[in-house]
Amino acid sequence: MAESWSFLDAFEHNFRPLVVIELAKGTKEETIEWFTKRIVDKKAKGGAQLLIKPLVTENGDENIYLVGASHLRLLLGAETVGLVKECNDNSMRTFTYSSRKTFRDFADDNHNFLTMAECQYIIKHELENLRAKDEKMIPGYPQAKLYPGKSIVRRLLTSGILVQIFPLHDREELKKLRHSWYGRVKVGYQPLDEIRCYFGETIALYFGFLEYFTFALIPMAVIGIPYYVFAWEDYDKYVMFATFNLLWSTVILEVWKRICAIMTYRWGTLLMKRQFEEPRPGFHGVLGINPVTGREEPVYSSIKRQMRIYLVSLPFVCLCLYFSLYVMMIYFDLEQWALDYHEENESNFSSLMLFVPSVIYAVVIEIMNRIYRYAAEFLTSWENHRLESSYQNHLILKVLVFNFLNCFASLFYIAFVLFDMKLLRQSLATLLITSQILNQFAESLLPYWLQRRHKKRMKKRMCSLKTDMDLSLVEQVNLEKEMGTYFGTFDDYLELFLQFGYVSLFSCVYPLAAVFAVLNNITEIYSDALKMCRVYKRPFAEPTANIGVWQLAFETMSVISVVTNCILIGMSPQVNALFPDSKMDLVLTVALVEHLLLAMKFIMAFVIPDKPRDIQIKLAKLEFESLEALKQQVRASDMYNSEK
Amino acid sequence: MAESWSFLDAFEHNFRPLVVIELAKGTKEETIEWFTKRIVDKKAKGGAQLLIKPLVTENGDENIYLVGASHLRLLLGAETVGLVKECNDNSMRTFTYSSRKTFRDFADDNHNFLTMAECQYIIKHELENLRAKDEKMIPGYPQAKLYPGKSIVRRLLTSGILVQIFPLHDREELKKLRHSWYGRVKVGYQPLDEIRCYFGETIALYFGFLEYFTFALIPMAVIGIPYYVFAWEDYDKYVMFATFNLLWSTVILEVWKRICAIMTYRWGTLLMKRQFEEPRPGFHGVLGINPVTGREEPVYSSIKRQMRIYLVSLPFVCLCLYFSLYVMMIYFDLEQWALDYHEENESNFSSLMLFVPSVIYAVVIEIMNRIYRYAAEFLTSWENHRLESSYQNHLILKVLVFNFLNCFASLFYIAFVLFDMKLLRQSLATLLITSQILNQFAESLLPYWLQRRHKKRMKKRMCSLKTDMDLSLVEQVNLEKEMGTYFGTFDDYLELFLQFGYVSLFSCVYPLAAVFAVLNNITEIYSDALKMCRVYKRPFAEPTANIGVWQLAFETMSVISVVTNCILIGMSPQVNALFPDSKMDLVLTVALVEHLLLAMKFIMAFVIPDKPRDIQIKLAKLEFESLEALKQQVRASDMYNSEK
Repeated sequence: MAESWSFLDAFEHNFRPLVVIELAKGTKEETIEWFTKRIVDKKAKGGAQLLIKPLVTENGDENIYLVGASHLRLLLGAETVGLVKECNDNSMRTFTYSSRKTFRDFADDNHNFLTMAECQYIIKHELENLRAKDEKMIPGYPQAKLYPGKSIVRRLLTSGILVQIFPLHDREELKKLRHSWYGRVKVGYQPLDEIRCYFGETIALYFGFLEYFTFALIPMAVIGIPYYVFAWEDYDKYVMFATFNLLWSTVILEVWKRICAIMTYRWGTLLMKRQFEEPRPGFHGVLGINPVTGREEPVYSSIKRQMRIYLVSLPFVCLCLYFSLYVMMIYFDLEQWALDYHEENESNFSSLMLFVPSVIYAVVIEIMNRIYRYAAEFLTSWENHRLESSYQNHLILKVLVFNFLNCFASLFYIAFVLFDMKLLRQSLATLLITSQILNQFAESLLPYWLQRRHKKRMKKRMCSLKTDMDLSLVEQVNLEKEMGTYFGTFDDYLELFLQFGYVSLFSCVYPLAAVFAVLNNITEIYSDALKMCRVYKRPFAEPTANIGVWQLAFETMSVISVVTNCILIGMSPQVNALFPDSKMDLVLTVALVEHLLLAMKFIMAFVIPDKPRDIQIKLAKLEFESLEALKQQVRASDMYNSEK
Repeated sequence: MAESWSFLDAFEHNFRPLVVIELAKGTKEETIEWFTKRIVDKKAKGGAQLLIKPLVTENGDENIYLVGASHLRLLLGAETVGLVKECNDNSMRTFTYSSRKTFRDFADDNHNFLTMAECQYIIKHELENLRAKDEKMIPGYPQAKLYPGKSIVRRLLTSGILVQIFPLHDREELKKLRHSWYGRVKVGYQPLDEIRCYFGETIALYFGFLEYFTFALIPMAVIGIPYYVFAWEDYDKYVMFATFNLLWSTVILEVWKRICAIMTYRWGTLLMKRQFEEPRPGFHGVLGINPVTGREEPVYSSIKRQMRIYLVSLPFVCLCLYFSLYVMMIYFDLEQWALDYHEENESNFSSLMLFVPSVIYAVVIEIMNRIYRYAAEFLTSWENHRLESSYQNHLILKVLVFNFLNCFASLFYIAFVLFDMKLLRQSLATLLITSQILNQFAESLLPYWLQRRHKKRMKKRMCSLKTDMDLSLVEQVNLEKEMGTYFGTFDDYLELFLQFGYVSLFSCVYPLAAVFAVLNNITEIYSDALKMCRVYKRPFAEPTANIGVWQLAFETMSVISVVTNCILIGMSPQVNALFPDSKMDLVLTVALVEHLLLAMKFIMAFVIPDKPRDIQIKLAKLEFESLEALKQQVRASDMYNSEK
């Protein structure tokens, strides 16, 4: 096989492997030949016009291929995906090959004009858009049906012929990134631009948000510490703290939008046009005509999907919520039992026992969250959404509702049914700290340790047959293909979301929560960085302009926290003492204050512009230019017509 | 003068006058010559390439000109303004001259392809975009400065040389429209498509909203009647009515967005691209470089504007609000005095006297609203906003806040301070009915009567010198130029907004309000139609895709009405009787219900899609097509480059 592409080596001496394709072992020859031909074929013939090379492993298997592309091909691909780059006049513009000279740092021999992550994104896009022409099935696999326009790679993936596609790490760059990111102990910002160059915008934005959020929590933490140190129980101070928190949480969420706009403008994704969304890989249905594209593709009736959502998913979620509440009641029974035990046999052991139910409950919550997560993924996938974005939205909604109830129901119960502030503070602390420890362990340290063990074993095996010069590449590919896959930022954002809940929902009862959150987030930055660089395969870069639905989730949480904090303050004995005669007045005052705070939040969200003024001007400038260009066209045709 | 354009009559036999330009009497010859030359000049020379004809009036004055355009010119103009028309395949597309054959009803000799309103809009757009080249001033008026790119028409308007520009009525069409609109007594929908063809989208959308809103109020009115007839004071029924109202108001506002999308899709404005906004006529400043366009134009510092807004406008508005509250307190004193008087000397006269304060107050409110309106216009204009849209938003905000307080403060005071439900009902009825009567009178009947008197006088004068064949056109122009100018839909929407407040804020106290609203709106449709057709000059059509900021205003009102209705129900003796032991429980229950209702409103607003599914598909289809077209371009350049 290898010789049929040998001309490539002659053609492009510095073939730079960017993406790895792993086929199933024992894939038929004809399939491989057809697939690689399609990848190499010219665009005009319906191919992807990329370069491909088999990787010869020690046991002679030919199931791993390296994909690269010529510099020119990548530049044309950058135009296809609509990359936005900086021009010589400091403005950001959509890259086109014909205007390439106007872009900063462009030179025909500068192969670093596109970052490696961008090159890999382009290759992924080209591979995914490699579409069937008149093939009725994948050659050699009659059961893997194709129809004109079906993405070949997606069909290969769903029929199990293609095991995985992943981008290669760049060891040099990774080393540099690791060093500047977490290699030395330092106080300062993360190298977000470098992270973005290496991992793409979605991940850089997550780390940017994590960092921003940590900084934003510091004022809350600083104000919270004296409450703990001096054991302040003063009414005025609590109210001040809660009010500050509520307004602060609105401000930070609004300011984040602005910071996000600044970053994504610099990265070019703020201006990137949305591509037309293709059906997600798992989507299936009978062949029909898509009303939007007019193409033949699987269609699935919207009514059937609605029925699945409302008649199966919704009842299932409700059942899970009920089950979660049931477990909560068991926890309270346990708690009571531990208390009784402690009172009967007072000893060191029994006072330790007091914490056991909380810790068990925290562990159970984590376990339930994770199990539910699988169920939610299964259900949402079964709902058969056509688009990845709609799948994601339904999944996030399901997971958020359950996790919110699962994590906070017991706290709500303690606060608003039992009215036990001491227990609330204790439970909050236990839940927060336990979940933080569990998360850090399960997310990074455990996988890191497993990964190290695996790597050592691999290295030993490799050393015994060091014969080829190219071995280090073989070694690298073999190592990386066994690494775990990073499934996106969902879990990371979810963790932050729940943390935000712990900090803000009951902030006036336990001001110290912000301190723990800050400490956790500082280690979280390091452990997440470790996870990205050491534990997982390199993920494909995904251009994105904002944190999407999470912005809404955080904003909803901050609205709910206004309500809970107002009630908590209203219930405090200090405030009750201010209204000795009439509880009625107290309740009415609290309700009034709550409505004013909510109104103020909405007005603030409305008044603070989402984009800073200079970004607004830059965007307006671009829009103006494109309108002017359009007018010039029209004018030219006017002149042409008037001369006729 | 007239002979210099005589070639036009030869060139275009059927010159159709579309727009009237009235210059100030005694405008210098050289100015007229320069201005008309610029209007007639070819596009390539920087002119507007329109046709213009002086109108010779009985006293020989030459200060009125008629503007028209050739059919070809109008079609090219339609492309410039980005009109969207229906194609032969039923889809809506942006009109381009080169693809003209694909549009429904297009034929080179079909002069009705563009509606008259569209032609007039195109001419207005072309006139406003007639820009100064290297002129430093308007010839003959050295004080009227020009700079390259300044709109000539706007400078002529601000320096008083140009008195007005207005589109001509089409008497034939108007007659037909009048007949189908309000000419016969019938039950049915308004001819919205015909209204849109004649008056443009903004006005058609207002009448569409008025009609929709009236229909939407009918269920409320129908449910409200039995409460009045049977004098129900039953708790369950009131709660049911209020709950229905609250959910209903959310539903109707969401459904309106969908209906609006359907209408504006059919009219093409949903797809119309936003044009780049030029500074509004009144905007002034020192010459500088606009950061967006890079052109030299007046700039005004944003900080200065912010200072004017926060240091002058805001305090002034607060002062007005205070004054309005002060007047309210005087009203309550009067009310008390009338009551005392009635108790002292009980008679028919004294019981009539009881209504006098309310009526006086209603009249005073209307007067204050109108005076404040002028002040708000003056202030907002003084704030010197660059864009018309930002001017409008600031004006609407100012006016809404004041009118809201002015109209509803007394009702809030009666409801939540005096706790007098009987007085509330009485005041509500008086305010609602008085303001409706006043509005109908001041808005349409009075101007109509004035207009009729004027018209008769004019006709008499005209008849005495009937000599020319063309007199009927002269007569028409002379009549129309004296008619009042319609200043947009602001006042009409404001009236509806306040009516919505009367209906929804205290709906559970006075269910009959909806009945009055429905009755008022039915006559309102007729009187507004009369106003548009008979009283005012024809307004220029304005393409628009929605009712803009009013949607937000109505939604805000419906949120506020959830709060007020919950409190009112909580205060009713029937509900109080349900919680005989603990007022606390009552308040907590009411607060809980209120929060649930608010949450439900937000969820409903989130879940109901803003556009119906078929419109969504049509929009997605268009987007897909434009992306495909882009890809084809890229592919073509790919092939070109790969062949090199």
